[in-house]
Amino acid sequence: MPPENNLADLGEFGLISRIAANVTIGHGVITGIGDDAAVTAITPGMQLLTSTDMLLEGVHFRRSWHAPYLLGRKSLAVNISDIAAMGGIPRWATLSLAIPKDCSLEYLDSFTKGFLSMAADHGVALIGGDTCRSNSGLVISVTILGEQLPELIIRRSGARPGDEIWVTGTLGDAAFGLSLLEQEGGTVETPRRDVSTYLISRLLDPTPRTAAGRTLAESGLVTAMIDISDGLMADFGHIAELAGVGGTIQVNALPISPAFQSASQRLSVFPCSFVLSGGEDYELAFTAPVDNRKKIIEITKKSGIDATPVGIVTSSPGVTVIRSDGSEIAPQAHGFTHFT
Amino acid sequence: MPPENNLADLGEFGLISRIAANVTIGHGVITGIGDDAAVTAITPGMQLLTSTDMLLEGVHFRRSWHAPYLLGRKSLAVNISDIAAMGGIPRWATLSLAIPKDCSLEYLDSFTKGFLSMAADHGVALIGGDTCRSNSGLVISVTILGEQLPELIIRRSGARPGDEIWVTGTLGDAAFGLSLLEQEGGTVETPRRDVSTYLISRLLDPTPRTAAGRTLAESGLVTAMIDISDGLMADFGHIAELAGVGGTIQVNALPISPAFQSASQRLSVFPCSFVLSGGEDYELAFTAPVDNRKKIIEITKKSGIDATPVGIVTSSPGVTVIRSDGSEIAPQAHGFTHFT
Repeated sequence: MPPENNLADLGEFGLISRIAANVTIGHGVITGIGDDAAVTAITPGMQLLTSTDMLLEGVHFRRSWHAPYLLGRKSLAVNISDIAAMGGIPRWATLSLAIPKDCSLEYLDSFTKGFLSMAADHGVALIGGDTCRSNSGLVISVTILGEQLPELIIRRSGARPGDEIWVTGTLGDAAFGLSLLEQEGGTVETPRRDVSTYLISRLLDPTPRTAAGRTLAESGLVTAMIDISDGLMADFGHIAELAGVGGTIQVNALPISPAFQSASQRLSVFPCSFVLSGGEDYELAFTAPVDNRKKIIEITKKSGIDATPVGIVTSSPGVTVIRSDGSEIAPQAHGFTHFT
Repeated sequence: MPPENNLADLGEFGLISRIAANVTIGHGVITGIGDDAAVTAITPGMQLLTSTDMLLEGVHFRRSWHAPYLLGRKSLAVNISDIAAMGGIPRWATLSLAIPKDCSLEYLDSFTKGFLSMAADHGVALIGGDTCRSNSGLVISVTILGEQLPELIIRRSGARPGDEIWVTGTLGDAAFGLSLLEQEGGTVETPRRDVSTYLISRLLDPTPRTAAGRTLAESGLVTAMIDISDGLMADFGHIAELAGVGGTIQVNALPISPAFQSASQRLSVFPCSFVLSGGEDYELAFTAPVDNRKKIIEITKKSGIDATPVGIVTSSPGVTVIRSDGSEIAPQAHGFTHFT
């Protein structure tokens, strides 16, 4: 076995060089990997957007479920999604890895390839990071930097009573995918029906909505925005809390995918909680004055994703979910809670 | 016990609010903790400096040796040190924590207090982060952002043959401190002699040399700079590699502290490897034309730390260490190597 196939022989600096060799020149990168700090040039007039996420094996992902290439993609995607939610342009990222002994160099190469493919998809340059060994599982920590003109940045706090509540794409796919993985007890290699494949891929390989987020911000049509990582109820709840408002969500308006529809027909009860409270779809939830509806539908479609109005911002606090007849769905039916 | 004393009751968002409540307004911070991404305004004309470090329990620190307040300070200090090494001004930081079950809220409060005290010492604002549970040890991931005018940023690659090699402060203290902790097998609370206390504090509570780094950069007197995290031999080696040069270091010129001197007298052999290859002093190593010597001594003293010339940059590659009589010290006597 040639020495470069062995991570211990390669060492920390060898691994960094190996990753750096695959990094292409990025927008505004003056000095990338290899000095004490990266040097980048922000676009004059723009402000800096910074977000960070840490993913731990056994907490956020399982190596048996998540192929390394897709795990690399997702670890950057969840960060890019935060820049999208501000209406920003993702630019630069750092990647820190704590690597357990049983992670081969081949595994790390595949992970890095996935990370850099997601970076290329969204115009992001890898500019630095840190690597070390881990005595337990794989730990991934990513920081994403983006930029945008101050007047275009969309915050959570801007929602106003009377605004419509919108979501991009479809909801609940990732949560449904997770339940399928949990039921099947499968591994990365398990062959699956098409419907399952789609739902599981939404969990394992989410697409951050950068084009939609940026287009919406630049349109001036929206008042608040957030990415849906913890489920619509929790994430719209953050908007409501910061804006000092509430909301009414129409359950029948919530967009679900054909795969979700098809898979749900195999269940005895419609999995409403996946749609309302399922995490990790990484769609955008946003609010906008009712008059902007037509334009929003147009510009999001042009950005490659449909957007759907799903409710109304209210001046009274609290988020309620109603059926098409106006009757309220009890909070305990909204779904499970995280972080307990 | 009131619920806010229990981390599980507090939850992720409760913990974030608790940390955010102690964060003061920072330079250029437009939107801090609480949105999808932080928004900051870089000083017009300046470029962005980015660095990140991850610290794992059992790999980089032991909770039994490191009081949480000092661990909080150090986890930011090692990042600030990277900005100092570029001659930059540290501005903003993110903090991600994966928290094991046996970490109490009191522990985290103390950690955060330490982190924010280091932030206050160096004008850094905490602008975001991530928290989650850990199934194994405590994981700390920090990203630091700084800024500086493009023409003042000091890179590793600028060293020129004939330049003098300099270091700030004293070398080997942290490595000596580590060896004392290893020998003593003590804990945070073990009472110690003054000399040991100093050496151990250099390991557990390092001081990043921001004032010296920035002053040197703004003076235009230095050609290359790095912070000494892996020991002078390794870190000057990075400068040499990137600049395509070598160096000769005079062992008798290397600055050691009175505490180091005193503690070394209790050993049968002078611990040369601590000085040459001991990590974690977080002093600066830099290079400068010989003619700048007097001015460098003056301006670093004004910045609060002494700087000492310790060798000469050579055009031939490789770093050699010589005694005052010019004889070479064999590489195996330089010390231990890391990352094996």
